Amino acid sequence: MKVLIEAIEYYLPSKVEGASALKRDNPDWKIEKIEEKTGIAKRHVSGVNETAVDMAVSAAEKIFLSGNYREKIDLLILVTQSPDYKLPTSACLLQDLLRLNKDCMAFDINLGCSGFIYALAVAASLIETGTAKRALVICSDTYTKYIGKKDRTCRPIFSDGAAAILLKPCNYQSLGPFDMGTDGSGFFNLVVPASGARVNKLNKPKGKLFMNGPELFMFTMDVVPKTINALLDKAGKTIKDIDLFIFHQASKVVIDNIIRRMEIPKGKVFINYRNKGNTVSASIPIALKDAQKGGRLRANDKIMLIGFGVGYSWGSCLIRWGGQK
Amino acid sequence: MKVLIEAIEYYLPSKVEGASALKRDNPDWKIEKIEEKTGIAKRHVSGVNETAVDMAVSAAEKIFLSGNYREKIDLLILVTQSPDYKLPTSACLLQDLLRLNKDCMAFDINLGCSGFIYALAVAASLIETGTAKRALVICSDTYTKYIGKKDRTCRPIFSDGAAAILLKPCNYQSLGPFDMGTDGSGFFNLVVPASGARVNKLNKPKGKLFMNGPELFMFTMDVVPKTINALLDKAGKTIKDIDLFIFHQASKVVIDNIIRRMEIPKGKVFINYRNKGNTVSASIPIALKDAQKGGRLRANDKIMLIGFGVGYSWGSCLIRWGGQK
Repeated sequence: MKVLIEAIEYYLPSKVEGASALKRDNPDWKIEKIEEKTGIAKRHVSGVNETAVDMAVSAAEKIFLSGNYREKIDLLILVTQSPDYKLPTSACLLQDLLRLNKDCMAFDINLGCSGFIYALAVAASLIETGTAKRALVICSDTYTKYIGKKDRTCRPIFSDGAAAILLKPCNYQSLGPFDMGTDGSGFFNLVVPASGARVNKLNKPKGKLFMNGPELFMFTMDVVPKTINALLDKAGKTIKDIDLFIFHQASKVVIDNIIRRMEIPKGKVFINYRNKGNTVSASIPIALKDAQKGGRLRANDKIMLIGFGVGYSWGSCLIRWGGQK
Repeated sequence: MKVLIEAIEYYLPSKVEGASALKRDNPDWKIEKIEEKTGIAKRHVSGVNETAVDMAVSAAEKIFLSGNYREKIDLLILVTQSPDYKLPTSACLLQDLLRLNKDCMAFDINLGCSGFIYALAVAASLIETGTAKRALVICSDTYTKYIGKKDRTCRPIFSDGAAAILLKPCNYQSLGPFDMGTDGSGFFNLVVPASGARVNKLNKPKGKLFMNGPELFMFTMDVVPKTINALLDKAGKTIKDIDLFIFHQASKVVIDNIIRRMEIPKGKVFINYRNKGNTVSASIPIALKDAQKGGRLRANDKIMLIGFGVGYSWGSCLIRWGGQK
């Protein structure tokens, strides 16, 4: 699609947690062993009164510092699984807090680690068909609010953060193809039980994130190579044609195993999980921004983005970088 | 857009409530006066263990009775504000329960009474750009679970239900234009306080739907005429050119006042709120189906759909009816 990523900004909460916080709350944990596996040394944790909407505002306001975009935006999508309210949709609150025009479409998409790819497809399609002209996609989640201090599976991995992405039409093929999929048969392997209308039959603590790490790993090893190959097929390309791979920053063990299995050269894979953690749907745009800041993106580079996780849900797409600074 | 509504089906819970239930729980209410204003005599109430996902399955399975659509669907959008879980997204559960292919995109859009218009725009755009080929949009909500027996503002109005809408490409301009908007400054006039990450500062009962009826009415009278006029302008048409108006079935007082103010002939307005109640995002597709069943839709009819409410959020669009039976 002829739709360009015009700007990316992100916000991370000021509170940072590392090994010392984990050790303090869990003297029995082998922190070094956990860190060796996850590759994650630091995570950001939202404040008690800080929500996905608050973080979304902080990320978006950084975008508005660099240009008078506020009144041009007519599409606002918030990707979140930790909304301020079940209703209304948090994107409506954002329209008001960001002082966007009233002729702006605004809605939340509920997706996790695959969410950025889906929101990109939705926003780009609405622009491509002329239904919208300028889109602001925001990915923002506070998973840490669902995680107890003694949860060894989830706490060392998940991190809070928000990324804001501005999209506009352009005159060349810059976005796509996409490959997306869903397998709800694994929904109970990453879930917050008793968090909605469904009566809790999962036999798990209510309101807290449950993750079956080994099952998630198996799912990832099955589905991520498939979506990469399907996308390469659709695009008529091979791994050699791709300049940079940006995976959802799930963890070291996940990304290492995918790229070993796919024989993707390490030098073509951008990672930033070490000091950012796994920020759910925000992780790909945050990594994209860090890659840009680090000089890893050149004009016309072909970049593959791959998201996967909760749902199960996954998505991948190609972007041709436009040379944005 | 060249995208056609191929089929609509809906499901309503078997439990029906009318005046006697309201009177039993609230002997002091003037039921006749309430009913005169709302126009609503009967509402459907989901079972204790019946969720938006369950209702969505029932509506979608009716679609599958009329054709082998199951394996053709590659896009599933669930519009809901009463999901089964905060995460994963309920659409993933539906992909599995409906036995759809794994190459199906699936996500929830969190919107209320405007939600069908938005989902129609999103699904049609994804089809129009070739990102999807066949879409199933489902609108399903169980607002009654948020409403206490003694809530005189909400209980006589809101009803549970699900509508499933199948969309496919066609070879003529059948859908659009759209006009959509958002005003989050009124979010607290229709909200479930303390239902998400935001600490409750609204000074309202936690977890229960709060509606400021007079404010919602004022918003509606302001914004609905504007979106109708904006849409007519975009389409280069007048009220005379429109064969049928299908409003979100908010209540009698709302629809009566809109059409009086806009001078829309009563005969051009389809209503079915009396025995269906206000089913939130499902109300427009349910009305569309009832209009079709009642012989009110002829091939090539120009129909205007208008949704409005919680958010605040609103949307309108034109469809050219394809002569479906």
